Amino acid sequence: MKAIVTLFERILQRVNINLRELGFDATPYIHIIPIGQMIKFYGFYGITPHHPLNFKFKNSNLAGSYFLGRCQVNNAILYKSDIRGDELKKRGDIFQYNDYKIPVVDNEEIQVEDSLLIKTLVHNFSHDPESLERFFIKDTISMNHSNIHGSPCEGCFIGAFATADLTTMHDCVIGNFAYIQAEEISHLNIPHGTIWVRNPGKFNFYYQHPQEKLNEYVYFSAGSPPQGKLIDFVADRKEAFQRVFDVVNIEQLIPVPSSASLDRYSVTRGQTTIGENVLVAQRAYLQNASLGKGVNVQENCFVINSNLEGNDVAAHGAKIIEADLGSMVFVGFNSFLRGRPDNRLTIGENCIVMPHTIIDVNGAVNIPPDYLVWGLIQSEEDLETHSISIEEFTKVETRLAMGNMFFEGNGAAFIEAFQDRIRHILKANGAFFNGAEKKGHAQKNQYISFNTIQPYPEGNKKGIFPTIVIKP
Amino acid sequence: MKAIVTLFERILQRVNINLRELGFDATPYIHIIPIGQMIKFYGFYGITPHHPLNFKFKNSNLAGSYFLGRCQVNNAILYKSDIRGDELKKRGDIFQYNDYKIPVVDNEEIQVEDSLLIKTLVHNFSHDPESLERFFIKDTISMNHSNIHGSPCEGCFIGAFATADLTTMHDCVIGNFAYIQAEEISHLNIPHGTIWVRNPGKFNFYYQHPQEKLNEYVYFSAGSPPQGKLIDFVADRKEAFQRVFDVVNIEQLIPVPSSASLDRYSVTRGQTTIGENVLVAQRAYLQNASLGKGVNVQENCFVINSNLEGNDVAAHGAKIIEADLGSMVFVGFNSFLRGRPDNRLTIGENCIVMPHTIIDVNGAVNIPPDYLVWGLIQSEEDLETHSISIEEFTKVETRLAMGNMFFEGNGAAFIEAFQDRIRHILKANGAFFNGAEKKGHAQKNQYISFNTIQPYPEGNKKGIFPTIVIKP
Repeated sequence: MKAIVTLFERILQRVNINLRELGFDATPYIHIIPIGQMIKFYGFYGITPHHPLNFKFKNSNLAGSYFLGRCQVNNAILYKSDIRGDELKKRGDIFQYNDYKIPVVDNEEIQVEDSLLIKTLVHNFSHDPESLERFFIKDTISMNHSNIHGSPCEGCFIGAFATADLTTMHDCVIGNFAYIQAEEISHLNIPHGTIWVRNPGKFNFYYQHPQEKLNEYVYFSAGSPPQGKLIDFVADRKEAFQRVFDVVNIEQLIPVPSSASLDRYSVTRGQTTIGENVLVAQRAYLQNASLGKGVNVQENCFVINSNLEGNDVAAHGAKIIEADLGSMVFVGFNSFLRGRPDNRLTIGENCIVMPHTIIDVNGAVNIPPDYLVWGLIQSEEDLETHSISIEEFTKVETRLAMGNMFFEGNGAAFIEAFQDRIRHILKANGAFFNGAEKKGHAQKNQYISFNTIQPYPEGNKKGIFPTIVIKP
Repeated sequence: MKAIVTLFERILQRVNINLRELGFDATPYIHIIPIGQMIKFYGFYGITPHHPLNFKFKNSNLAGSYFLGRCQVNNAILYKSDIRGDELKKRGDIFQYNDYKIPVVDNEEIQVEDSLLIKTLVHNFSHDPESLERFFIKDTISMNHSNIHGSPCEGCFIGAFATADLTTMHDCVIGNFAYIQAEEISHLNIPHGTIWVRNPGKFNFYYQHPQEKLNEYVYFSAGSPPQGKLIDFVADRKEAFQRVFDVVNIEQLIPVPSSASLDRYSVTRGQTTIGENVLVAQRAYLQNASLGKGVNVQENCFVINSNLEGNDVAAHGAKIIEADLGSMVFVGFNSFLRGRPDNRLTIGENCIVMPHTIIDVNGAVNIPPDYLVWGLIQSEEDLETHSISIEEFTKVETRLAMGNMFFEGNGAAFIEAFQDRIRHILKANGAFFNGAEKKGHAQKNQYISFNTIQPYPEGNKKGIFPTIVIKP
């Protein structure tokens, strides 16, 4: 065990050095993690002819973690993380950034170095024009259920259920349940529950979850493990995943159309139906879920007793319970949408539910079509200050304040950016596949070979994986 | 599938070119193999701190195959093979060969190139003084249930249930159920059922299984798959192994002493007991087996309704049914010892059952202690011409003929060589472990991390594994 303890301390020290200016010490947050857990699980990787293959793992612990595309992991501890790599840029691509047309000079690689990621989802569609060939995560600690989504980061601490999305970060602390999409940030300490979407010169969306109320859902401070309803919700369903990891060849419990993909590491229960072009990712949980054509349920999502009509997107970590969604509804990262069996939550078509939205109302909630929704909604009244019709919002030209939300800039540009992105997600996932063309992940991820990897089982290197190189 | 078909044809051509002088064509033997089978199973490898780690797999199919020690596989098809590497020579070792003391200049590597191995067990304690650092298998085809045991080979075809043991072979055909231990051979076509143990200048043991009778047990000729009682016996128990390959973490069904090792890819059924210092290897099958202290049951062995008193060795592929073995009994490779429930087979202590011995008698058979046994024994009378007391045999100074067996040379040297080897096996396997010293495989193989590897699941490379490199 000596080597893994040394590695753990080394990562901690590097992160603390990077965060010295913010006066942040990660020690009490991560010293609650029992290292013994980190040697219990196998890691695994997928192979398909569609993904660039270049795995390199060195002096790392990869317990319970999954890898799909090109990768390079050195001196890192990745505990139950999920690192996809199916949207990596290729040599010869031209990357458009504002007026720049930047040639991609090498196949893009995901590099994770000197970092500790706990149950973190890393998705790779990175947008940093300064580092097109390297999606780096360096000297960084990210905590339970966080997302690093196309966000290169160096010297950062990312809290529980936090999401860094398309943001290059240097020496930052991202609070629990904070969502950041801000191009490039440096030396910032982002408070818990901040929702910040910024496009410099175009718009700036800012919302602050009320701290006390947020604590009911996600609470994580120095010295004790993360707590709250979101943690409990996930923990209660942990057991259901046992079987998918215990069995080598798993039978599919429900019919899946040939144009759709239901990951073998997802869980399906009850009366669940899968439509054409549906993509259900790793570690998604479906229970009495009806998924219409083109629906996309991403990693770590839960869809329970709910109907998603078609082309809906449940982004990484979203939870949808007792709800009926019209078509083309986008549910952002880590959102927690909970209707009640006798008071269901209804969301009309084309709605955009911002990342990290919580809707948790005892009565029935009905969100009309074409609405933008955000923040913490615990009553019908909250809805008034936490939603607006998209049509209204596109009229904003200078600024808008509603409750804890402040927006400045061009509303239409903000909506357009969101809608562009939703279309990109649906397209990349194969929602528009017509039987011959417009293939996406739903069609390409059907046949993945899964391979398990394990660490040294005893001795000084116990828990450290051997050096592994996998190439075409 | 294109790549695997090309690879298959390439190997076949290379073997046929090597065997052109013997006029042997492997085509009809291997064209009965459905390539579709070869893409169905995962390969796997073990990691421990005790084994030199240096796996390299390139342009190969490894379906169902297992790897333990240093290895390098290029352009090969290894179907359900088991390639151990736990007795590899190390840089700096001195290898004693007659009067030569030869320094080992590099860590030994197993190299398998341009070869097709079907359900072949490869064990690595090689003795070729000409190639201490490379245990090579090149341009070779070996068929179902054969053993390549410390035997470098180039341009060979090895039949079903055949064993090449400590023999360097160039351009040879080894017949079905033939056992060869002959230092170095070249351009020979060894008939089916030949048992040949030679130490040039010292002794030469030669036995020929009667062809007609052998065919009942193992029959394999061009154009149809292997047949016979041995094939049926193994096939009948194939199902029992399903579970150990289907489940990721398998529970141990019976108690195993801390000094013993029961491989997680073995099968145990009924009232089976495991004594101290016992080593049960991969793909061994135990049913109502009582294994006393220091017993060693090697890969692909079956022990059914039998008692092994202690320090007995069941060498690779041996089958022991309804039998009671005294202590220190050695049962050679692929032997088939079948007693009957009401007429058990008894073998006294210190007996040496030569490799590829078949004892299959309807009545009770009682082999006294300190006997040498060989060949095909179907009746009590056969025993008279197929066994001799070790004491008698050591008196032979020139030659001895009994039935189909012909021996020339020094009987004592022959027995001594065997007994030396049995002691080596017991020692290497940890049979003499005293709680602190004399550790062997039984103590070192307890904690192996198993890792699965899979081929490309579709496309041109379907069935070909990616390039994989695993280092410390």
